[in-house]
Amino acid sequence: MEKKVPFTLNQAQSWRERFSTPFYVYDESSIRKTVSDVQKAFSWNKGFCECFAVKATPTPAIIRLLASLGCGTDCASVSELTISKACGLEGRKIMLTSNETSDDAYRLAVMCGAIINLDDITQIDVLEKAAGIPDTVCLRYNPGTFSFTSGIMGNLQDSKFGLTKDQIFEAYGILKDKGVKHFGLHCMAASCCLDESYYVLLSELLFNLVVEVRQKLGISIEIVDLGGGIGIPYRTDQKAVDIVSVGEKVRSKYEEILVPNGINVAIYTEMARFITGPSGYLVSSVRGFKHIYKDYAGLDATACDLIRPAMYGAYHHITVLGKEKEPCNQVYDVVGGLRENNDKFAVDRKLPKLEYGDMVVIHDAGAHGRSMGYNYNGMLRCGELLMDEKGDVRLIRRAESLDDLFATFDVDSDFEF
Amino acid sequence: MEKKVPFTLNQAQSWRERFSTPFYVYDESSIRKTVSDVQKAFSWNKGFCECFAVKATPTPAIIRLLASLGCGTDCASVSELTISKACGLEGRKIMLTSNETSDDAYRLAVMCGAIINLDDITQIDVLEKAAGIPDTVCLRYNPGTFSFTSGIMGNLQDSKFGLTKDQIFEAYGILKDKGVKHFGLHCMAASCCLDESYYVLLSELLFNLVVEVRQKLGISIEIVDLGGGIGIPYRTDQKAVDIVSVGEKVRSKYEEILVPNGINVAIYTEMARFITGPSGYLVSSVRGFKHIYKDYAGLDATACDLIRPAMYGAYHHITVLGKEKEPCNQVYDVVGGLRENNDKFAVDRKLPKLEYGDMVVIHDAGAHGRSMGYNYNGMLRCGELLMDEKGDVRLIRRAESLDDLFATFDVDSDFEF
Repeated sequence: MEKKVPFTLNQAQSWRERFSTPFYVYDESSIRKTVSDVQKAFSWNKGFCECFAVKATPTPAIIRLLASLGCGTDCASVSELTISKACGLEGRKIMLTSNETSDDAYRLAVMCGAIINLDDITQIDVLEKAAGIPDTVCLRYNPGTFSFTSGIMGNLQDSKFGLTKDQIFEAYGILKDKGVKHFGLHCMAASCCLDESYYVLLSELLFNLVVEVRQKLGISIEIVDLGGGIGIPYRTDQKAVDIVSVGEKVRSKYEEILVPNGINVAIYTEMARFITGPSGYLVSSVRGFKHIYKDYAGLDATACDLIRPAMYGAYHHITVLGKEKEPCNQVYDVVGGLRENNDKFAVDRKLPKLEYGDMVVIHDAGAHGRSMGYNYNGMLRCGELLMDEKGDVRLIRRAESLDDLFATFDVDSDFEF
Repeated sequence: MEKKVPFTLNQAQSWRERFSTPFYVYDESSIRKTVSDVQKAFSWNKGFCECFAVKATPTPAIIRLLASLGCGTDCASVSELTISKACGLEGRKIMLTSNETSDDAYRLAVMCGAIINLDDITQIDVLEKAAGIPDTVCLRYNPGTFSFTSGIMGNLQDSKFGLTKDQIFEAYGILKDKGVKHFGLHCMAASCCLDESYYVLLSELLFNLVVEVRQKLGISIEIVDLGGGIGIPYRTDQKAVDIVSVGEKVRSKYEEILVPNGINVAIYTEMARFITGPSGYLVSSVRGFKHIYKDYAGLDATACDLIRPAMYGAYHHITVLGKEKEPCNQVYDVVGGLRENNDKFAVDRKLPKLEYGDMVVIHDAGAHGRSMGYNYNGMLRCGELLMDEKGDVRLIRRAESLDDLFATFDVDSDFEF
């Protein structure tokens, strides 16, 4: 699909004057539209909830926007539970899906009334000791084999997450004996999958398991969480998932498998990448060029702002603002200034001829972007802007300062700047 | 080589009571010993300076310790220059080796009297505009091909760093015309290399270039910086580099190539990994077990504390304190609690049978460890302890708090915890 930037060079230049590059920009209209599409896709399901994985974009203004649209959150830590709570969420609008979970995280989740999604059968005891067993408990299922597994998730038998099928039955039995009244079932069997049949086949698997659990244990599962895993077209030759069509096909499975058994479940999804990924842009300025064995364009952003290319070799499309219509007749490695050779936003990328100061937009950075930032080489992570429907922006997270970077040195009284 | 831990289970338990796991421990004696070895190896060279790459371990107490031993620093950013300055370093004890360098970094480097190591010929103009051309300038050479290139550094023709040979000559000429009086030459052609001939062959290459530069341009290069690149034996079947022997062999090349031409240069090295890598340990506690398609032991540390296994698939040896003599007859994936399947400190690792609360030491974490930490999943990065010769520790960097994590949200007045 074609990659368009929802703001102009003029806008970006005015933001650069106010905030300096690099910075992230999130497009509120686009987030609203995508949430609306997701909710439309599952509007047939009573109790449907999109629980946005906070780890993708843990900025309060984003979480609050999503909460105002009816989304919940999917949390992995005390920090993410705290953000969710501060954004006004509570109860079944919060999932805790974590592994090697701390007692503190269990306690805070129980205090928030969150749905705790246990990663392992041994966690029943851990949860009980830490916080007691709540009324509602969800289990994360790892089917071991499944048709759709991506490079990042890999073979599910090598995935550290979830319970085996045998353990699922055993764990529901134990939880029932311990007085749990409401049950959930969660599974995430792919990462960044663009095949529209993924959710359909996954829901078929899970709906059948729901039926089996009722038949064998007399337990009615009330929530089926399809997890994340729906991808986005990072490349222009990829096609976005038609989520409304996917929702309809999940509905068919629901009507085929659950309805005849008189079972109703609330569908939960965790489509963070799908929702904010394409709505977020990392905006940077061209800082220099070098021509050695290859031709390089250097940016003022680094892997510290967006680690995905360095960590996964991930592709992110690049638009040069104001040069959208110029021919892409140059080939560059587009790099950041880290002293680490994997700090390359693009390798052998065809782009228009670049000049000093050109504003470069890195697409699809709205999920797992700023949230995965690090401080290698003493780099300060950049700030984030939220663009409203009029095209105005406000700062929702500021760039780090040296004081932030040095904050944890305050135990060392000998050290003064 | 055998991997020993320089502290006992009892010590580690007492530290856990005071600071909670996970934490890093650096062994001051070991750092002192290694610095002494490096200095001994090059004691024949007048002006020798080990410039520790701050990016490896940017903690002030470590940098100050190294400075007290006569080391300088190798910096990549304003932050690292600031730390060096605050640790009492200045002048030729500081190198700025950076790429896509900011004007601020150039200005601060000039203010500190640091040696600026230009990454590209175009940077002469950038430096001149930002801060003026100082008396001393170094150039980073990228030879394009070289026998020793590792997986991380890759083919040098794909490396974004440095100037080609033609550019080296051109750049020295320009700098001479601009009034530069003192010249340096830098090259880093490998990463984590355990072959003892690496520095020897590299010095041969650079010494010959020094001679050639004098013959062609009449310029006397005064500093030859061999960069980093010397590895450490992460695996027990690997052997540590005998740096004293390497130093002697570099001396032979020096006497063979430079002395007959009447040239004296100061040798600089940047052996951060070699110096602090094996002296730093990430200490963690076993938080849980799961047995699904594989057997997992979960730690309270995550990839947020040590990203190398997740980013590079790097091997780090593991010792279970108090079980050093027990048979390694169990096989575990040792994992952290990130919701990311690459958060595995070890895959299929043979270890003694683990129990809840066991203290696990991850070796060779003293360089590119805490400094590469990130906050994915809202995780808080751990603190650092420095162990003195008596085996006592003091906190040199505290663990992050929620306040630290949320500090950059302070622009968002709607958000309160």
